[in-house]
Amino acid sequence: MSVTSLAEIGALLGAELIGADARVSGVAALEDAGPSDLTLCFDWRRIPDLEKTRAAGVILPRRATGLHRAAPCAALLVEEPRLALARVLRHFHPEPVEAGCVREGARVEAGASVGARTIVATGAVIESGAGVGDDCRIGPNAVVASGCTLGNRVILGPGAVIGSCGFGFVPRRAGVVKIPQVGRVAIEDDVEIGANTTVDRATLGETRIGRGTKIDNLVQVGHNVSIGENVLIAAQVGLSGSVKIEDGAILGGQVGVADHVVIGAGAQVGAKSGVGTHVPPGARVAGYPAVEVKHWLENAFLWRRMRKLLKRLGGEGSRP
Amino acid sequence: MSVTSLAEIGALLGAELIGADARVSGVAALEDAGPSDLTLCFDWRRIPDLEKTRAAGVILPRRATGLHRAAPCAALLVEEPRLALARVLRHFHPEPVEAGCVREGARVEAGASVGARTIVATGAVIESGAGVGDDCRIGPNAVVASGCTLGNRVILGPGAVIGSCGFGFVPRRAGVVKIPQVGRVAIEDDVEIGANTTVDRATLGETRIGRGTKIDNLVQVGHNVSIGENVLIAAQVGLSGSVKIEDGAILGGQVGVADHVVIGAGAQVGAKSGVGTHVPPGARVAGYPAVEVKHWLENAFLWRRMRKLLKRLGGEGSRP
Amino acid sequence: MSVTSLAEIGALLGAELIGADARVSGVAALEDAGPSDLTLCFDWRRIPDLEKTRAAGVILPRRATGLHRAAPCAALLVEEPRLALARVLRHFHPEPVEAGCVREGARVEAGASVGARTIVATGAVIESGAGVGDDCRIGPNAVVASGCTLGNRVILGPGAVIGSCGFGFVPRRAGVVKIPQVGRVAIEDDVEIGANTTVDRATLGETRIGRGTKIDNLVQVGHNVSIGENVLIAAQVGLSGSVKIEDGAILGGQVGVADHVVIGAGAQVGAKSGVGTHVPPGARVAGYPAVEVKHWLENAFLWRRMRKLLKRLGGEGSRP
Repeated sequence: MSVTSLAEIGALLGAELIGADARVSGVAALEDAGPSDLTLCFDWRRIPDLEKTRAAGVILPRRATGLHRAAPCAALLVEEPRLALARVLRHFHPEPVEAGCVREGARVEAGASVGARTIVATGAVIESGAGVGDDCRIGPNAVVASGCTLGNRVILGPGAVIGSCGFGFVPRRAGVVKIPQVGRVAIEDDVEIGANTTVDRATLGETRIGRGTKIDNLVQVGHNVSIGENVLIAAQVGLSGSVKIEDGAILGGQVGVADHVVIGAGAQVGAKSGVGTHVPPGARVAGYPAVEVKHWLENAFLWRRMRKLLKRLGGEGSRP
Repeated sequence: MSVTSLAEIGALLGAELIGADARVSGVAALEDAGPSDLTLCFDWRRIPDLEKTRAAGVILPRRATGLHRAAPCAALLVEEPRLALARVLRHFHPEPVEAGCVREGARVEAGASVGARTIVATGAVIESGAGVGDDCRIGPNAVVASGCTLGNRVILGPGAVIGSCGFGFVPRRAGVVKIPQVGRVAIEDDVEIGANTTVDRATLGETRIGRGTKIDNLVQVGHNVSIGENVLIAAQVGLSGSVKIEDGAILGGQVGVADHVVIGAGAQVGAKSGVGTHVPPGARVAGYPAVEVKHWLENAFLWRRMRKLLKRLGGEGSRP
Repeated sequence: MSVTSLAEIGALLGAELIGADARVSGVAALEDAGPSDLTLCFDWRRIPDLEKTRAAGVILPRRATGLHRAAPCAALLVEEPRLALARVLRHFHPEPVEAGCVREGARVEAGASVGARTIVATGAVIESGAGVGDDCRIGPNAVVASGCTLGNRVILGPGAVIGSCGFGFVPRRAGVVKIPQVGRVAIEDDVEIGANTTVDRATLGETRIGRGTKIDNLVQVGHNVSIGENVLIAAQVGLSGSVKIEDGAILGGQVGVADHVVIGAGAQVGAKSGVGTHVPPGARVAGYPAVEVKHWLENAFLWRRMRKLLKRLGGEGSRP
């Protein structure tokens, strides 16, 4: 455990220190922090907890002017609180330096390749013909199926499946005919994929996930999907076949996207939306079917007005 | 297999026996039951099957007055049919008394603890630093990650993941910055967690699931979520970061709850709802955005009225 | 790798060949195809890629009259493009003939049966008392729990769970009472089940999935569900307890179906719908609550008209 002064952390974060410097040895939540801890408070609603904290120092958002007056300790004012959180946690919890290894109970089949310093956890399976890059972490019971490739520094959560068969079937009178799924999955550097998420191989060609993209738990990525760089996809999202998500887009939880739809660069899709048509770059959409957020909010307002109107009309509503 | 008389089962259930006593050796569905079986019928729509059953006796809800006249056998009238079902199934299928064991192919890493009589099934992984209490059942290929703790009598379904990384990322121009997830998961006594469900560790502090809570399959529990006691959460629900579910709440399938939202004690959330704001204790809400059930039903009614109104206006709708 | 002439493939597909015959050795996407490849183009929007393809031949839908004029190569005109895709992929990628085996790291417990030529992949678990038929493929880390049976030619994706406990609980003042789940799962011939999908055993009796049915990834099939033959169920669908899906029905992604609901034969349910009432055979429904597709579309139209109306009323909306 490293011990650091608040002033040093302030320098690390580009933060303004208010109050006396002190030495801290860890980070803890407001209510858990002790006198050798740094803590953080991003939200006015947590002032009661802030006032009672035993921490030596607290990280506060600079824009919450005056919040530090509620703090019974030194304060570090930062411009970007979540970025500060990321940095200070990494400071006190540096990435463990582990030798790469294929742990007991993991299986790397003959004909699969695993890069330097990569960890393949217990129960994980790297099938023949799959390739995993350097410095990756393959979680317990995760699967990388044959023909699929991972770049460097890729993280797969426990139970994640890369290279499941795409859902391609033709219903016919005599029964359902399967479209063989003979493509692959290509995952670029620095991608992180959550627990029990499934990524289907392409029918032909590849399903691709671009550099730096982060995907949460229980997400379904269909066959031939193409995801750009630095995309964020929250839990339980479902992407149908051949969907394209461009760079920097953000999808909230439980979103569904219909096949062949394009979500433009930097677009944001609200949680639980159903997207059936292309979303332009930079747009913010929500609802099912998804519309621009301003229309979605306006719809809610108009609906309330309609309720009032119909209630005034009362029994006459059906014969105006 | 134990053999019991209907009268004895009646005493167990606090039920009234109508018709002749008989000996039964098991429970079976209406259409499967034979002459040594007890069966049950909770629903008027199943009268045709009830009339044809070959069972020796049938459990019926007392409030369905007269339903027993359709029964070709003895009837046990109960106040709480589902509770009676639970008890009679447990009577004929007592919990197997198994010695605890770590089965072949399961891995308990050095530095993990597993309590008395706990069963760790094939392929399950208990990581170093994790702790599992007494009388637990860890399903095949389930994962308990480092630092996470389970109380006593906890059941994890196959493929469940406890302690996956929370989804904490800061999108920046230069790429996505990860917020290290250094907290843990604490699961209290008598919790049951379904197959392939994922529970994220906290960013800081803990994700907690309270005593007696039951969670179905494919549910996502985000980082720092706090779930109270005796909560029921149906399949494919998604709880975002820092959500709080208070004691005794019930969430239907595929519900989504936005981050930091509080679902009050005893509240009920209808299936597929999207909850973006706090739900008061005892409230019943549904829809997306979720509103009180009575408003949700009223909205459907008003919508039908509006349809009629607009149809009457016909072509003049756009120029009233 | 087999080499075939376009004329031979034309005969296989019942297709009309336009242009010169040529020999091809594989299938590739429009943009990936080389001079010894066959490719395909089903969509006018891909004409720019079609014009640039280097393929020796292209499969085109006959109904897209004139599309072949954009092709710089021979064309095969087919009536059913997706069926042609299935056949031509199977032609070039025949099912591998593998000896059945229980792979290293897979577990078939004592008292389980596994049929001829079936492959049980690494990490998969067949519990005691389970039965798997002939020519099945059980994916890595999939689980078939005790008492569950699979027919012949059944495919389970990685991490799929057959026979998890149904979610049956009775909330009571003193805590939650569990309804023991003592039934089983029966899966018929030629069923395919996707990665990380979960199928609950019945409370009593059986959960059944009929011959030829295909289920995508991350689907939840509740206890006592009965699914007919040749049903298609897309990813992340949730079927509550005792749901009945009749032959040939098709469910889009993320659909939810309430308990005891019947989806009639050949019915189609749009993606993300919430189905709370029976759907007649052959019906097409969408939305939440799900209504006939024509009403769903009409609702969207009426809503737009109402928006206009309310906007015209302007500030007077609340006092007409």
